[in-house]
Amino acid sequence: MERRGLEALMSHYKTLKEEAWAANMEIPKRGLALYTWGNVSSFDPDRGVFAIKPSGVPYSDLKPNQMVVLDLDGTIVEGNLNPSSDTPTHRILYQNFNLNYKGEIRGIIHTHSSNACAWAQACKEIPLFGTTHADHIQVPVPCTPCLSIEAVTKDYELETGKLIIEIFKRNKFDPQKVPMVLVGGHGPFAWGATASQAVYNAAVLEEVAKMAILTLQANPAATQLPSYITQKHYLRKHGPNAYYGQDK
Amino acid sequence: MERRGLEALMSHYKTLKEEAWAANMEIPKRGLALYTWGNVSSFDPDRGVFAIKPSGVPYSDLKPNQMVVLDLDGTIVEGNLNPSSDTPTHRILYQNFNLNYKGEIRGIIHTHSSNACAWAQACKEIPLFGTTHADHIQVPVPCTPCLSIEAVTKDYELETGKLIIEIFKRNKFDPQKVPMVLVGGHGPFAWGATASQAVYNAAVLEEVAKMAILTLQANPAATQLPSYITQKHYLRKHGPNAYYGQDK
Amino acid sequence: MERRGLEALMSHYKTLKEEAWAANMEIPKRGLALYTWGNVSSFDPDRGVFAIKPSGVPYSDLKPNQMVVLDLDGTIVEGNLNPSSDTPTHRILYQNFNLNYKGEIRGIIHTHSSNACAWAQACKEIPLFGTTHADHIQVPVPCTPCLSIEAVTKDYELETGKLIIEIFKRNKFDPQKVPMVLVGGHGPFAWGATASQAVYNAAVLEEVAKMAILTLQANPAATQLPSYITQKHYLRKHGPNAYYGQDK
Amino acid sequence: MERRGLEALMSHYKTLKEEAWAANMEIPKRGLALYTWGNVSSFDPDRGVFAIKPSGVPYSDLKPNQMVVLDLDGTIVEGNLNPSSDTPTHRILYQNFNLNYKGEIRGIIHTHSSNACAWAQACKEIPLFGTTHADHIQVPVPCTPCLSIEAVTKDYELETGKLIIEIFKRNKFDPQKVPMVLVGGHGPFAWGATASQAVYNAAVLEEVAKMAILTLQANPAATQLPSYITQKHYLRKHGPNAYYGQDK
Repeated sequence: MERRGLEALMSHYKTLKEEAWAANMEIPKRGLALYTWGNVSSFDPDRGVFAIKPSGVPYSDLKPNQMVVLDLDGTIVEGNLNPSSDTPTHRILYQNFNLNYKGEIRGIIHTHSSNACAWAQACKEIPLFGTTHADHIQVPVPCTPCLSIEAVTKDYELETGKLIIEIFKRNKFDPQKVPMVLVGGHGPFAWGATASQAVYNAAVLEEVAKMAILTLQANPAATQLPSYITQKHYLRKHGPNAYYGQDK
Repeated sequence: MERRGLEALMSHYKTLKEEAWAANMEIPKRGLALYTWGNVSSFDPDRGVFAIKPSGVPYSDLKPNQMVVLDLDGTIVEGNLNPSSDTPTHRILYQNFNLNYKGEIRGIIHTHSSNACAWAQACKEIPLFGTTHADHIQVPVPCTPCLSIEAVTKDYELETGKLIIEIFKRNKFDPQKVPMVLVGGHGPFAWGATASQAVYNAAVLEEVAKMAILTLQANPAATQLPSYITQKHYLRKHGPNAYYGQDK
Repeated sequence: MERRGLEALMSHYKTLKEEAWAANMEIPKRGLALYTWGNVSSFDPDRGVFAIKPSGVPYSDLKPNQMVVLDLDGTIVEGNLNPSSDTPTHRILYQNFNLNYKGEIRGIIHTHSSNACAWAQACKEIPLFGTTHADHIQVPVPCTPCLSIEAVTKDYELETGKLIIEIFKRNKFDPQKVPMVLVGGHGPFAWGATASQAVYNAAVLEEVAKMAILTLQANPAATQLPSYITQKHYLRKHGPNAYYGQDK
Repeated sequence: MERRGLEALMSHYKTLKEEAWAANMEIPKRGLALYTWGNVSSFDPDRGVFAIKPSGVPYSDLKPNQMVVLDLDGTIVEGNLNPSSDTPTHRILYQNFNLNYKGEIRGIIHTHSSNACAWAQACKEIPLFGTTHADHIQVPVPCTPCLSIEAVTKDYELETGKLIIEIFKRNKFDPQKVPMVLVGGHGPFAWGATASQAVYNAAVLEEVAKMAILTLQANPAATQLPSYITQKHYLRKHGPNAYYGQDK
């Protein structure tokens, strides 16, 4: 016990693990998953490692020191517990997104939030019906097809990440501008500049998914938002002339 | 720090800012918006100024003294933070509603509540299906069309207000009797005799929007309430012979 | 202040008012109405009086001593505040239900719970889809038509009660066995052997209304429960051979 | 009182009753039933007895010592209260499931959770739309037909259990692999290796039921998950090569 306390104090990854832990604790708080059905990781691009939730540990029992630290090859560099079974998906997304996009994706989240899962299970992208959506991304929330039988047989979680990457490459999506995706038949992944920002994007995705279902109930023939409004709303919050918030 | 404390004490707008702050704090409490996606302002017609939420500040961090005070030309008269990006919409609504309607609109709110946004995204007015609706307004909740490309390009938030005003003028709606509107593709605005009353109307709108969606699920062919019941319910709560509450 | 405290102590209706107050406080706790949109009364058949919520007072401010006590002619026998605007509906229901059915209805409630209002706004009875419903009533939850223009013009709240009574008479419903109704275009009323039991029935009604909408979403062609199961479930909880609970 | 305290101390079934009590207390916490509309039991295969919730007692008043202990013939071996009216269903499920399947079912739960009841009332199995479902069971959630008039007349609760067993036998379902079922027109039953695991499965069922309804709203033509993904997800969590959690 004292040994463990000492180890925690001596961890080279204390801050990284605390960031990952705090972000994971937002999952139950924001109702994004039941029990243990979600995970967040936090990435340190300088050291090439990320901290992720241990597999199957309830949020109520989760401690910062239980976070598992891995490098981008998937080798555990610190931690006594098994990392989340979705770790290979996180790993390959960090690798790809940061290699090709300036190292700005430092947090990834996977949840089973109800409405986002519904769209994933429906195998449909989420239509861009309004400004709540456009404030955050300029396109419908993409949805991958279901994984092929080959992909599932080979290395399921890694192939999940590869499928996301393939969809993003094919559609020329910049992961900084499209920080969320649905995996067909499965559920949502989201990411951001920090683990906390990734959670924010997952909460946005759930709300946008919910509103889109309600929109279809109010009007089954609802049409998407004109692109000039989409662009305006996105640029209010993002880009060089953004004027939302206190940073500008 | 002491300086700031002193400044707060010395503010000429202490009460106005506290009213605006208290009304903003109702937004998360009543589930009318996630994160920072809503704002309320409080207007003082004698001094021609209103206090509004600063842009992008989470409700959990919000302090009364952070409210930004502006005049009706949009000039900041007190406050160190950027006001809500929706400030021009508030400003022009106060100008128009009070110029033409006896100065009785002293609070305005914008939220992204889920069901009201769904109707806005559906670009549909909310049908007047029942007395919960009729207790508060005598017509379907109006929905503007989406803003034109010209309006969006020019001065988006100001044009949003102008579009609302245009719809009200065209339909001869009195903003005291129709204290809420949906902006097509966007979401709800509501107002009232005080900032607190504006929040009340936004909560009414969300509940009415929710019930209307559920009504269509119970009966896709549901028809609107007979006008004699609408009128009766409205007059129970409003007008010279109202007999609801303790004021009469 | 002391005077009031004294008055409270001296009230002949202390227990009755406390029962009504406690039942009213269940409305926000169980999410059956926003703000002040609901009211419960508690009836004392021996003295022929009932205590009811004062009109327009928020639940958070409500005190037992604020309950208004009226006789069945509608005369206030104790209390300084205006009674609920729905008082005449309560009054005539107590009169009729107890005159004709052995004095067993001692609590009445009116709410604006979302799903029950949706069915009322849809002007549809709630189909008896399952045992959650059958555990409590043996028929679809009845829904009156909208009130006629004559009824609305005459004495709206009293006529609301008369319409309920008419529907019950026409369908030969015993109010002890059918302790709930929807008023078309308006919302639910429920009642029971006590004010607390009335609230229970209103909560049952809201849950049954919610499940029925969800049932139609899972299967738009869903059919009603076979009558032999309805009867069995009802008799498990009610009647001489009931075997649910601890009283038998 | 002291007598009772003593009795509790002397109970041969203290742990069993505490397990059953703790599991019952999860029902309101997880929103799986209103009032008293749910029950969990905990089974001890070595002694051939199970502890179950007393009938009609609100969760807020429930004490561990109030649990009723019965043997598999339905004889009460400890307890002063009437056991849940659903006791015969629990009893016959324990008998059958443990006789034929190695004694591993030690907890059973019945709830009236809204979305699971909606599918039961719709008399439809829950389609296997996604991995949230596949993580827990490999087939659509089965739904029995409504009980026949003969079964209802004979011994309703026992016949409910027999119908479940018949459906499982006919479909060759192993209750360890299919730990949940809907009873047509009624609602869900679930079970597991412990009472706590049974509650977990009931919560899974409610979430899966909710997601399936939302999936149909997003896409009324949604198709089921390819079986190779179903199998993969199930085996990630179950079976000899499972790699989810910390036990492997």
